[in-house]
Amino acid sequence: MYYYKEELINIIQPDKPDPAAAKVLQETLGGQFGEMRTMMQYFFQSSNFRGPGKAFRDLLRGVFLEEIAHVELVQNTINQLLNDSGLSAPGNAGTDAAPLDEAIKHANPHHYIMGAKSSLPVDAAGNPWNGSWVYSHGNLVADMLNNVILESTGVLQKTRIYEMSSNQTFRETLGFLIVRDNAHQNAFAKALETLGVNWAKIFPVPNYDIHKYPECRKYVDLGYHNAQFNFRLDETRIAEIFQGESPSRSSGQLSVTPPPKGFPVPQLPEMPNEHSPGLSDLSR
Amino acid sequence: MYYYKEELINIIQPDKPDPAAAKVLQETLGGQFGEMRTMMQYFFQSSNFRGPGKAFRDLLRGVFLEEIAHVELVQNTINQLLNDSGLSAPGNAGTDAAPLDEAIKHANPHHYIMGAKSSLPVDAAGNPWNGSWVYSHGNLVADMLNNVILESTGVLQKTRIYEMSSNQTFRETLGFLIVRDNAHQNAFAKALETLGVNWAKIFPVPNYDIHKYPECRKYVDLGYHNAQFNFRLDETRIAEIFQGESPSRSSGQLSVTPPPKGFPVPQLPEMPNEHSPGLSDLSR
Amino acid sequence: MYYYKEELINIIQPDKPDPAAAKVLQETLGGQFGEMRTMMQYFFQSSNFRGPGKAFRDLLRGVFLEEIAHVELVQNTINQLLNDSGLSAPGNAGTDAAPLDEAIKHANPHHYIMGAKSSLPVDAAGNPWNGSWVYSHGNLVADMLNNVILESTGVLQKTRIYEMSSNQTFRETLGFLIVRDNAHQNAFAKALETLGVNWAKIFPVPNYDIHKYPECRKYVDLGYHNAQFNFRLDETRIAEIFQGESPSRSSGQLSVTPPPKGFPVPQLPEMPNEHSPGLSDLSR
Amino acid sequence: MYYYKEELINIIQPDKPDPAAAKVLQETLGGQFGEMRTMMQYFFQSSNFRGPGKAFRDLLRGVFLEEIAHVELVQNTINQLLNDSGLSAPGNAGTDAAPLDEAIKHANPHHYIMGAKSSLPVDAAGNPWNGSWVYSHGNLVADMLNNVILESTGVLQKTRIYEMSSNQTFRETLGFLIVRDNAHQNAFAKALETLGVNWAKIFPVPNYDIHKYPECRKYVDLGYHNAQFNFRLDETRIAEIFQGESPSRSSGQLSVTPPPKGFPVPQLPEMPNEHSPGLSDLSR
Amino acid sequence: MYYYKEELINIIQPDKPDPAAAKVLQETLGGQFGEMRTMMQYFFQSSNFRGPGKAFRDLLRGVFLEEIAHVELVQNTINQLLNDSGLSAPGNAGTDAAPLDEAIKHANPHHYIMGAKSSLPVDAAGNPWNGSWVYSHGNLVADMLNNVILESTGVLQKTRIYEMSSNQTFRETLGFLIVRDNAHQNAFAKALETLGVNWAKIFPVPNYDIHKYPECRKYVDLGYHNAQFNFRLDETRIAEIFQGESPSRSSGQLSVTPPPKGFPVPQLPEMPNEHSPGLSDLSR
Amino acid sequence: MYYYKEELINIIQPDKPDPAAAKVLQETLGGQFGEMRTMMQYFFQSSNFRGPGKAFRDLLRGVFLEEIAHVELVQNTINQLLNDSGLSAPGNAGTDAAPLDEAIKHANPHHYIMGAKSSLPVDAAGNPWNGSWVYSHGNLVADMLNNVILESTGVLQKTRIYEMSSNQTFRETLGFLIVRDNAHQNAFAKALETLGVNWAKIFPVPNYDIHKYPECRKYVDLGYHNAQFNFRLDETRIAEIFQGESPSRSSGQLSVTPPPKGFPVPQLPEMPNEHSPGLSDLSR
Repeated sequence: MYYYKEELINIIQPDKPDPAAAKVLQETLGGQFGEMRTMMQYFFQSSNFRGPGKAFRDLLRGVFLEEIAHVELVQNTINQLLNDSGLSAPGNAGTDAAPLDEAIKHANPHHYIMGAKSSLPVDAAGNPWNGSWVYSHGNLVADMLNNVILESTGVLQKTRIYEMSSNQTFRETLGFLIVRDNAHQNAFAKALETLGVNWAKIFPVPNYDIHKYPECRKYVDLGYHNAQFNFRLDETRIAEIFQGESPSRSSGQLSVTPPPKGFPVPQLPEMPNEHSPGLSDLSR
Repeated sequence: MYYYKEELINIIQPDKPDPAAAKVLQETLGGQFGEMRTMMQYFFQSSNFRGPGKAFRDLLRGVFLEEIAHVELVQNTINQLLNDSGLSAPGNAGTDAAPLDEAIKHANPHHYIMGAKSSLPVDAAGNPWNGSWVYSHGNLVADMLNNVILESTGVLQKTRIYEMSSNQTFRETLGFLIVRDNAHQNAFAKALETLGVNWAKIFPVPNYDIHKYPECRKYVDLGYHNAQFNFRLDETRIAEIFQGESPSRSSGQLSVTPPPKGFPVPQLPEMPNEHSPGLSDLSR
Repeated sequence: MYYYKEELINIIQPDKPDPAAAKVLQETLGGQFGEMRTMMQYFFQSSNFRGPGKAFRDLLRGVFLEEIAHVELVQNTINQLLNDSGLSAPGNAGTDAAPLDEAIKHANPHHYIMGAKSSLPVDAAGNPWNGSWVYSHGNLVADMLNNVILESTGVLQKTRIYEMSSNQTFRETLGFLIVRDNAHQNAFAKALETLGVNWAKIFPVPNYDIHKYPECRKYVDLGYHNAQFNFRLDETRIAEIFQGESPSRSSGQLSVTPPPKGFPVPQLPEMPNEHSPGLSDLSR
Repeated sequence: MYYYKEELINIIQPDKPDPAAAKVLQETLGGQFGEMRTMMQYFFQSSNFRGPGKAFRDLLRGVFLEEIAHVELVQNTINQLLNDSGLSAPGNAGTDAAPLDEAIKHANPHHYIMGAKSSLPVDAAGNPWNGSWVYSHGNLVADMLNNVILESTGVLQKTRIYEMSSNQTFRETLGFLIVRDNAHQNAFAKALETLGVNWAKIFPVPNYDIHKYPECRKYVDLGYHNAQFNFRLDETRIAEIFQGESPSRSSGQLSVTPPPKGFPVPQLPEMPNEHSPGLSDLSR
Repeated sequence: MYYYKEELINIIQPDKPDPAAAKVLQETLGGQFGEMRTMMQYFFQSSNFRGPGKAFRDLLRGVFLEEIAHVELVQNTINQLLNDSGLSAPGNAGTDAAPLDEAIKHANPHHYIMGAKSSLPVDAAGNPWNGSWVYSHGNLVADMLNNVILESTGVLQKTRIYEMSSNQTFRETLGFLIVRDNAHQNAFAKALETLGVNWAKIFPVPNYDIHKYPECRKYVDLGYHNAQFNFRLDETRIAEIFQGESPSRSSGQLSVTPPPKGFPVPQLPEMPNEHSPGLSDLSR
Repeated sequence: MYYYKEELINIIQPDKPDPAAAKVLQETLGGQFGEMRTMMQYFFQSSNFRGPGKAFRDLLRGVFLEEIAHVELVQNTINQLLNDSGLSAPGNAGTDAAPLDEAIKHANPHHYIMGAKSSLPVDAAGNPWNGSWVYSHGNLVADMLNNVILESTGVLQKTRIYEMSSNQTFRETLGFLIVRDNAHQNAFAKALETLGVNWAKIFPVPNYDIHKYPECRKYVDLGYHNAQFNFRLDETRIAEIFQGESPSRSSGQLSVTPPPKGFPVPQLPEMPNEHSPGLSDLSR
């Protein structure tokens, strides 16, 4: 069973609204290599796990737990990027104002239609998240290889998305996730090392220098690229795998640690023009 | 952030394998009104919440938390229904045995192809789960109405699926979920009552007598149809809404309670013929 | 604007329930070459029509109108094939009866889950109807050629589906629609004849002998393969195109006629075990 | 069977071309809560209806009939918004002109590729309409609740889309449909009132003031928010439900009335550069 | 079996990067009437062919072989249009540069996320290519008619896409393909002529004058609109069908010829900022 | 450009019709890890290739070329499994025969509706092939890792599908493809070895003993698991990678060899009852 404390795993850095950034960041939420995919993939792999290799199962479950928090972080980031976008003069004021006319120019129009300027389970091109992207092969080596490449692609795409806006709300979340994907890449690469593989120098994929991203550097200094956060309220055997020298060129010692101190979940303001939450008239 | 204790929210009742039952039970996992949908819908609604109505937000988050455990319960139920189905003589023994020939006759063949006899994010007709099914309208009344109908449809479909097999693994899980959907129907119906709606006698939908299902009765006796399980490690204001007389004909007092004591997560055996987990040769 | 008289365009012939037949007949409703596709394709082509060729526009609209009635006919046929399938002892009677256990063996399980044994907007393989199948090319010749091939494929598939069951409910509807698709094939082939094309002997596609289908013969005797039913309450110029010698080997004179006398729309019985319609407890 | 008179249910107000407005208005046509969805949902619910509640069935069928006319209205509105967009100098004039270069910048490129600047069965993000969105639960209460929320979401989305352009072609259609969705929300809310529900003040959803939309006001003055247009050529029992005091805060008496006098269906000009309709060379 | 020589079927004309053109040209690659569709449709039709009509089968196979080369040509054209788009200052240089900020404004963001500025199996609206678009009806007349309309729609859409940019990389490829689609339209139209059809003057569809497109003219002068390129290493009987007078108004004699001399396949430069190909650090 | 000789890459072994085997074999054709996916994935990766690593590009292109022949092999195998299934008495003989009634019981009904008992671009659950499954990451290490896991999953699934029937038409094709997937797994694993990776004993995935499959053994004896067939008509640099000791436990030396001698492409008989090819009446 799953328990919750209302805290985000990282900070939502304030900056201006940026609907174009919100649109592309959807890839990180609902895209084929986004957080919903990783969350559901590790959920299915851990529930479908066969055999006595409990350390491997605990590893899958451990990463799954963090991915739920990642989904929540990206949802909140997108909401922050959309909040206050558009003008404030509502069309139903009796004038001909069209306050969203400009806002949607480079936006996903569904951000303004389906909800009240808020996140959606879709990718950067507007395609809905699809269950066929979840791989649970039922073969441990195949699953671990698949997870390594999934985390690698996750970082690769995030470093590309990062180039699309210098908005700080956008980049802070990407910087944090890039470092954490690095840690998860290490986790699954290490799992295959325990089966004998020697990765030489191919990791990290992509061959970026994580220290060059200003938003990543502070997390690297905290050792987040080599840490596995532990969200278990009972015992876990992750450390039987996640330990020793990092399998990546970035080097360092892997270790299981408590999660970061939490950050406040933002409270989004009401938006009467968007009829959200839509309660005001009910108390008349 | 999300924490976990390795316990199922209900028991996996042992019975014979039943691939046809596993196929239809996928609706409850990856169908349009299944547990993945409810889980993701309340996740998005709570992250996208606007305005100061924290009791409503806590209600959404509270039900979301339980839905994660429901997903896990159905995954494990499907795995149990598939486990040991098919004969044991493998084709690669050099004979012409085809041990899955009969097993797939009324099964979803993907249960035997994609993984090692295990659950998938698809529905009873084999269609993958789709993000466009998640509604987060950004209007509190619309969201609550939508959630009432989602829970109602959830029960309605489960009572129909229940008729498709008398397998006890299958029915125990359905019985538990029928009672819990009833509680969640009450939760969202009550939320609308706090805004003034009087539901008269239309609930529960469907108009079933929950006492007549043998698998449901014990949960009704425990009061599960009127209880909201609390998975929060911090404060929650659910009880400002989930309290007082039930909005349904079944009557009773609503109350927030701790979750059930947990049940063991089954450990599935290895399946060498399915190459799962596939580690045996690696230690040569 | 659209007007309605509660009459079916053909009779629902009584026979035994046949869920396997209902499953394959879904192709004729929600398949890529089914009645929903033809209905929506001609709807979009007539609304998107450009230029002064009103006789062509009226032809598109005329066939569109009949297709709405075809959709309704197939919905009712599927409902009839599903009605009364399965046993009557409900699981919630406190016994372990599973009355749908056998019924779903060769059925689309969604017929028993999504609704109360009733039709769905999906095809014979359970895939939902998809808007990308609708072609409205905005070029009259391309649209007419596409419609000829759409109607040809419609007949071709129906003659194959016809081989899948000898149930009379199933075959009566297919027989009627085969003859009508023949008429619509003639309509679009004739439209291209007015632009100069000479089809020689290639029509009808497929090269079947419509007289050999017992269910078709009576409609051929009525001349339905050469008739365009007129559902317009105002003037139509269809007859400028739909006239003269048939473009098919079956020969005969094309003519615009009133629709058939209507047939009663069946009233489906209540199904308390399926909670349909689900009103009985509301009057307590 | 279905009959037709070539008249639109509302006027197409002339204004300048606006491809960006056409793109977002697609949501109202082919989106998950658009007119194609409502049309097909009520079509399936009325054909799949069980039991003797003919007044309910007539209500479903009555709204269905109007929705066909709504689909036609939105198709024509989109066509008007696209017509004449782009420059007139064709690329095949031997120059290097690219007359659509600017037009597609904020447009759905499929509007210019699939047809000759005309409407498509897709939503505002370009996703095709999907049959899985149609709900026909086979339980009257569930269906009525679902329809209430469908109409509520329909209005909610239209009030948001309305903010995206002040183009009069666009807003006139939206204004009319907002008022009509209000009437249909009343219809299904009233149907549940007849089963005992008291809605207090939660309707209309969203909590807008319909009088503040200049384009809506004239339709409110005509009483269109409390009227059910009758498109039946035979008897209907809608008025057994659709009568008495409105279930919404807007108040007023519900009544069944004849449809509006019709408006002309625009005749779109030929577009030789788009090869539409493509007949000119055939008469050489 | 299939053999390859590393040569493109036409030249990649150099011009400036143009991401908006790359986005719309995706329709020609992964759209419903694009080269992937034609390639797969003729592949399935030739493998599924029944009966002794080997000349027809060879015709299908012959066009299929050319379509593989067309897919490769469009992939390379899109890559050329994307290459060098965006600024060169990478975000990971420690500055706040966002070099893709402008590039994605009118682009498909997936061009910059999924790969390193390269082609995708999607259409102009970002929808993935879908197998349900492939028609293999198993009836020769139906298949030939379908192929005529597929090639006609292919040209029609390309003439519209052509209007969207005057970029020479873009137009050279479109010009070549327009002429080749014309030849394939002739091929399938001629196949139906051998069965007796007389097309009068309806072809080519659309009714364009191919000589007016500057990029087409040189290919028309080479006779490419009336030529079938032969990619067979063994005998083919195409010429039994593809011979004699063209079925189109453009007239001329049809003939089977060797393929064009090949053109170099461009070698795309590395993009270290996009981590492509990603080998540089591996040699440390 | 692509050239063809009408020869299959392996033999179609004769055996009885088996529609249930045809249904599950569709996974190998149109499934997420089937031959259409591998074919298109390597096609896109080779066209989108960046940088001077021509040996890697030639490797991708080399495997791509073989995959086209694999698609053709599976199409022909499915056709053989479907051919002659069903009874021969047609329904249009004036009797009530329904010759497909039994045939479709465990079949994909689309095999009998869409074409004349022939292959489709869909998977074993009837879902159409989808372009979003093609990965072309634009990072060489990520692409090679992805290809290793794709080939591993390909074999894994084929060994499971193999258990579903002992039909020799079915198993011969699977046996051949299992061995070839093994070779391609070796190819991509070796490519990563050239970058320094040491795989220890994890390959082959799955951990099967290829010698135990009777249908595989003869191909292993021919060395097909360590051979790369060369389909290039010009130079290729594959052998710079594909050489030396196999990266798998099965050991042996890798080498580039000519393709197998070809096998005849079956000529399917006419099926008049299925209107295929449908020419007989045209010569009257």
